[in-house]
Amino acid sequence: MFKAEIKSDTLKGLVNVISTLVDEAKFSISGDGVNLKAVDPAHVAMVDLTISKGAFESFSADDAEMGVDLDKMKEMLKLAGSGDVIAMEQDETQGRLIMKVGNITRRMNLVDTSGMSDPKVPQLSLPVTVDVAVSELQRGMKAAESVSDHIALSADEESFELFCEGDTDSVSLKLDKTKLSGITASSKVRSLFPLDYFSNLVKAIPSDTVVRISLGNDYPVKLSFSFADGNGTVGYLLAPRIEND
Amino acid sequence: MFKAEIKSDTLKGLVNVISTLVDEAKFSISGDGVNLKAVDPAHVAMVDLTISKGAFESFSADDAEMGVDLDKMKEMLKLAGSGDVIAMEQDETQGRLIMKVGNITRRMNLVDTSGMSDPKVPQLSLPVTVDVAVSELQRGMKAAESVSDHIALSADEESFELFCEGDTDSVSLKLDKTKLSGITASSKVRSLFPLDYFSNLVKAIPSDTVVRISLGNDYPVKLSFSFADGNGTVGYLLAPRIEND
Amino acid sequence: MFKAEIKSDTLKGLVNVISTLVDEAKFSISGDGVNLKAVDPAHVAMVDLTISKGAFESFSADDAEMGVDLDKMKEMLKLAGSGDVIAMEQDETQGRLIMKVGNITRRMNLVDTSGMSDPKVPQLSLPVTVDVAVSELQRGMKAAESVSDHIALSADEESFELFCEGDTDSVSLKLDKTKLSGITASSKVRSLFPLDYFSNLVKAIPSDTVVRISLGNDYPVKLSFSFADGNGTVGYLLAPRIEND
Repeated sequence: MFKAEIKSDTLKGLVNVISTLVDEAKFSISGDGVNLKAVDPAHVAMVDLTISKGAFESFSADDAEMGVDLDKMKEMLKLAGSGDVIAMEQDETQGRLIMKVGNITRRMNLVDTSGMSDPKVPQLSLPVTVDVAVSELQRGMKAAESVSDHIALSADEESFELFCEGDTDSVSLKLDKTKLSGITASSKVRSLFPLDYFSNLVKAIPSDTVVRISLGNDYPVKLSFSFADGNGTVGYLLAPRIEND
Repeated sequence: MFKAEIKSDTLKGLVNVISTLVDEAKFSISGDGVNLKAVDPAHVAMVDLTISKGAFESFSADDAEMGVDLDKMKEMLKLAGSGDVIAMEQDETQGRLIMKVGNITRRMNLVDTSGMSDPKVPQLSLPVTVDVAVSELQRGMKAAESVSDHIALSADEESFELFCEGDTDSVSLKLDKTKLSGITASSKVRSLFPLDYFSNLVKAIPSDTVVRISLGNDYPVKLSFSFADGNGTVGYLLAPRIEND
Repeated sequence: MFKAEIKSDTLKGLVNVISTLVDEAKFSISGDGVNLKAVDPAHVAMVDLTISKGAFESFSADDAEMGVDLDKMKEMLKLAGSGDVIAMEQDETQGRLIMKVGNITRRMNLVDTSGMSDPKVPQLSLPVTVDVAVSELQRGMKAAESVSDHIALSADEESFELFCEGDTDSVSLKLDKTKLSGITASSKVRSLFPLDYFSNLVKAIPSDTVVRISLGNDYPVKLSFSFADGNGTVGYLLAPRIEND
C-alpha cells in the first residue's frame, strides 16, 4: 500500500536527478519514506536517493516496491504548476500507479522490477570534501562542453578546480576558498571523469543547492546534497577515468 | 469590394481556429460581416465561423468571395504586436489582398475559390450541453496526447469527463458540476472522437474562452464559442469514431 | 602584446556583426584600439569595424594581429550576463587567446592569419543617405523573407522604401521623411540586393541603433552605425544584384 501527496517541485527535482541515470526506476517504499538506488546501464554511475515522509504533504505506506517509467512521471509533472500538489496512489490489484494533478488522473502500468538490480553502495574513504554552489558548477559545465569529453576535478587546501583539455582549447573553473562554502583537504588530489555524466547530473540539481563533492586521487567522486528542506538526500557516485600519460 | 481594419488579436484568434482544419479558406463577405464554412480534407470536421462588422475597427464591403492562403496571413500577424490594428483591402483588378501592419504592406495573390466546396452545416439535435473553461480542456489535451489517439467524451447530470485509454495507461479529466460553467443533461451520453482534431481545436481557442460542448450518444460533438466581445461566433462539428467492442 | 577588459554586451554586438560574414576573423591591434576588415567567402559583402580603446574597461596593447574563431568567442559570451566584464589576453608563447568570464578561463588556439586577405575598402560616392531606426528594418526583414530572395532599396527626397517582389506576393516597407531620422537625396535612386546578406546584418545590429544607409543607382549599399557610445564604428558594404528586365 502506498498513498501520498507531494509538492510538484519536490517530485520534479527528484525525478530529474534519477532520470540522468535511468529511464525506469525501482522505488523501495516503507512507512518512513522512499528510497531509490540505481546504476546506469554502463555501470559508470550510481545514485542513492532517500526521501522521508516529512517531505510529503501526506504519506501512508506499507513496505512495497514500485517500478516506475520516469518519462510518464515527467509528462504528469509538466501539467503541474510550481505550487501544485500531486497525489499518488498504488493500485495493487491492477499493478498501476494512479497520479492526480488538479482534475486530471493518469493510471499508469507499473514496470516489472524483477529484472532490476539492487546495487550495493560502496563505502569509500575520500580524503577531500568541497562544498560549492551548484550554480558555479552549472556555468562551468556550459563552458566545458564544446572543449572535451572528460573533465578533471582537483583540489588542495586552498582551492578547487574543474579542468577540461581538448585538442586546441582548454577550459578551467577555479574557485579559491573564498568562493566555496567550505573545503577540507589534507593533500592535493585529482581525478578524471566522463564529462557527460558529470554535466547531466550538475544540470539536474536545483540551482540554489550547495553540493558536497568528495574527492580522492584517481578515485570515484561522490556528490551529495539535500533537497525538500533536508527531508531528502542524494548521494551520487561516479567512476573515474584512468588517464593515459 | 472589401476594406476593413481589425485588431491583430481578433484576426489571430480567427485564423488559428480555421487553420486547424484547412490551409486555404474561402471567406464570404457581405455588408454585415464575414462568414466562413470549411471542411477538412478528410471530411471529419467542419467549422462555421461568423464575424460581424462590429468586431472590426472599420468595415465597408459589398458581397464578395475571397480565397485566402492562411499561412500568409499568419506571417503578417507575426509582425503585429497585440495592440496593433491590421488593415485589409481587396484589390479586385489584380485579384490580390492588401494587408498592412504598421509601415509594412503585403500584397498577396488570392486563391482560386472555384474548387472550394460550400459545405452545408447539418442541423443536429444533441441532448447534452456542457459549458466549460477551455483552459481545463487544454490541460487535459496535454495529458492525453501520449496515451492514445482517440478520446471519449461523456456526461451525465452531475459531471463531464474526457477519457483516453491506451495499451498501458489511461488519462481522465473529470469535472463535476461545481467545476463547470453549466451542464444540461437528461441522460448519460458518450461518444468517441479522434484526439488530434479535438486537441488541435482546443489548443487554438483563446485561453479565457468558455466553450459550449453539445454531445450525444455515438453522435458528432459540437463546440461553440464566441470571440471579439460576442461579435464573432464559431461552431465546430467533429464526427465520432465508432467503437469496436 | 594584447590585454584588455570589455563589457560582454559590447563584445557580443561586435562579434554578432562580424559573424554574419565570416567564421574566423583577423583582428588588427594597435595601442589605440582594434580594427577588423573582412570579406565574406563569396566576395559579396565587406565589413570594416573599428573599436577604440575607450570602449574597453581596460586596454593595453602593442601592434599585433590575432586570428580568432568567432564561434569559440560566442560560446564564452553565452556564459556572461549582460553586466559582466570579459577579460582577454594574448598568450604569445603558445599562440593562444585567454578569455575569462567570472571564475571561468578558456584558453583557445589562435587561427593562422597568413591565409587571410587584407581587403581594401573602396571609396564610393553614394548620392543618397537615409538615417533609420534599425528596429523598422528588422520588422521589414521578417515580412520579406517568405516572399523573395532579393530586396530593392530605393529613396527620393521624400521617402525610403524596401521592396520585395516574389512570384505571387510583394512586401513593401515605406518610410516617409517623418518616420526617418534623416534623409538627404538629390535624385531618386534604386538598387537591388541579395536579401539574405542584408537581412542577416540587419538582424545582428543592436535594436536601439540608428543606421545610416548610403545608396546609389545600381550601386553597392553602405550601412554605417556606431556602437559602444560612439567608441566603435561599423561600415558594411554590400554589392548590388543586376536586374534582368
